[in-house]
Amino acid sequence: MNEHLYAVIMAGGIGTRLWPRSRSAKPKQFLDLLGPRTMLQETIDRLDPLIPADRVLVVASEEHAAMIHAQVPALPRENFLAEPGPRGTAPCIGLAAVALLERDPAATMAVCPADHLITDPAGFRQALEAAAALAQKEYLVTLGITPGYAHTGFGYIQRGPSLGEVNGLPTFLVQRFAEKPDAATAQRFVDSQEYYWNGGIFIWRAATIMGEIARLLPDLYAELQPVAGAWHSPRQREVLSAAWERVPRTTIDYGVMEKAALVAVVPVDIGWDDVGNWATLSGLVKGDPQGNVFHGDGDRLLLETTDTYLYTSAGRLVAAVGLEGFVVVDTPDALLICPKDRAQEVREAVERLRADGLAGYL
Amino acid sequence: MNEHLYAVIMAGGIGTRLWPRSRSAKPKQFLDLLGPRTMLQETIDRLDPLIPADRVLVVASEEHAAMIHAQVPALPRENFLAEPGPRGTAPCIGLAAVALLERDPAATMAVCPADHLITDPAGFRQALEAAAALAQKEYLVTLGITPGYAHTGFGYIQRGPSLGEVNGLPTFLVQRFAEKPDAATAQRFVDSQEYYWNGGIFIWRAATIMGEIARLLPDLYAELQPVAGAWHSPRQREVLSAAWERVPRTTIDYGVMEKAALVAVVPVDIGWDDVGNWATLSGLVKGDPQGNVFHGDGDRLLLETTDTYLYTSAGRLVAAVGLEGFVVVDTPDALLICPKDRAQEVREAVERLRADGLAGYL
Repeated sequence: MNEHLYAVIMAGGIGTRLWPRSRSAKPKQFLDLLGPRTMLQETIDRLDPLIPADRVLVVASEEHAAMIHAQVPALPRENFLAEPGPRGTAPCIGLAAVALLERDPAATMAVCPADHLITDPAGFRQALEAAAALAQKEYLVTLGITPGYAHTGFGYIQRGPSLGEVNGLPTFLVQRFAEKPDAATAQRFVDSQEYYWNGGIFIWRAATIMGEIARLLPDLYAELQPVAGAWHSPRQREVLSAAWERVPRTTIDYGVMEKAALVAVVPVDIGWDDVGNWATLSGLVKGDPQGNVFHGDGDRLLLETTDTYLYTSAGRLVAAVGLEGFVVVDTPDALLICPKDRAQEVREAVERLRADGLAGYL
Repeated sequence: MNEHLYAVIMAGGIGTRLWPRSRSAKPKQFLDLLGPRTMLQETIDRLDPLIPADRVLVVASEEHAAMIHAQVPALPRENFLAEPGPRGTAPCIGLAAVALLERDPAATMAVCPADHLITDPAGFRQALEAAAALAQKEYLVTLGITPGYAHTGFGYIQRGPSLGEVNGLPTFLVQRFAEKPDAATAQRFVDSQEYYWNGGIFIWRAATIMGEIARLLPDLYAELQPVAGAWHSPRQREVLSAAWERVPRTTIDYGVMEKAALVAVVPVDIGWDDVGNWATLSGLVKGDPQGNVFHGDGDRLLLETTDTYLYTSAGRLVAAVGLEGFVVVDTPDALLICPKDRAQEVREAVERLRADGLAGYL
């Protein structure tokens, strides 16, 4: 079965909350945020040997194609899918399903965001195999991340009746998907031990998801039909661009998963993190005795500074005096300073940059 | 009398606490910290018309000579005195007295630091004239800054019996000089209304101070004698350098003023400030409605940021999210971040830079 198992890496995100390192020319997934390899490289590395690079598809913006092939030389040219523009995860997944069905009508696809951390790749692959087995029974399968705490920034998945053990792992029907909860609700979810974080990792047969798109997102399905018809033709690019002008922006969670009938979850505890903002990134790294974390290759001087994340750039010096619990990201042309507990607001700062005519820094 | 009144501008400081704008190549006094003119230019501007540039002497390091003449084109070449190295204010003043006595044995000298702010130049000149009149009676005269609050970073001057009104201003004998006090003592000083801040502005006849140096600092006086003897000779520079190898480091306050007999004070309220660190500098500028002060010509983005001083550099962006009461100084190669209430500690940060092999940023 595994020769029909493909990975679809969604690499079209912009990683706003990791600005100013994450930029439109080189978003989060193309950065070496946590080690020598980029997030994209790590994402593809961890699939091996279950899914080698020739069965990996990367969906991203055309402008990042050269960078992607440079970062992943083993990726065949034809495995890069240029999405004409971001329309949410549902059109992205629909496009990948079209491409896979053209290539292998028996394809099963594991949809993985390109910008997440997983510290237990073997556990991840074991879960993918379990999910792929369930997918053969027409389930839409999601990995459910065992929640480390009552995070309010993620959607949650409530498990339902057991589907038994698959590939050595317990599996469940999904009872429901819950949107990002408030703090009290999140705590209740965690305490119940019935809920998992929705990490956006999905496994299904390409034919299954295409059928569900046809049923639940008929507008998207209608736009995908001419795209499939023109695949491998000289008009492929033109038809896709025209379709993408019209496809409605939809997430796969809202558009399909919350309404589908046969949805399964494979609970995992694989060291997953979405590396969502500078504070969470900092929390993933062991700091010095004062709790400070240093990245980058610039100079630094710290005086009475604790619990602070510092990214520095070559040829520059950052001097921090008396900082407690801060994020300082000093790139060659843009500097971010904020308390760790405001790290989520970097998103608003980036929006303001655009509004203030400072988009050159994005 | 005024044609014998000279100013001696002490411009040899290094302005450590205003790093990273103040650098060894261009210390505080040569920067436009508070407006279009540099501190040195302001210092010389405000003497006019009482003391025109041809009666202004500037004492500084040789390496800053070109910059000083560029900033003050009206300064005659011979009015620049190169001090071979910093030895405290007493040798600096002794050197200036030597130069002035060679030029004009009847010289009266007003000693002014090059890096202080005075917002009432007319009041300042009125006080200088009063002080110069007292100086003709052999007094060592100091301006006493009416204290705005119980500052613990300045020395204080306690007034004694009245010397009557001079040039429209009350004048007093000095009772004593007090070193930097603790907070309670400072408050007592201010409450008594008998104490003034010692702003380091002194007025005396060159012959008077030279006599006091001979009496109170005989080691310094001994070194100054060959310097005076070689003045205008080919050996002037060599003799001065040799003397400066030996002169003990002494301040005029400790070495002379605290021990001299005839010391007078002219109290002033002339908008004086030593612009001692980034927090005090920020307090001298009217901020925006959120209390933020912006200097520099770079880009900036502030989100929920209050009471913060921001210096930005061209071609770079500073994004501040959720800062309250901070100093951020972003120069092309070095960045400082600290809470305003830690601004004094920039001095230690600079010392650490030297110790850590990062003196290239000084």
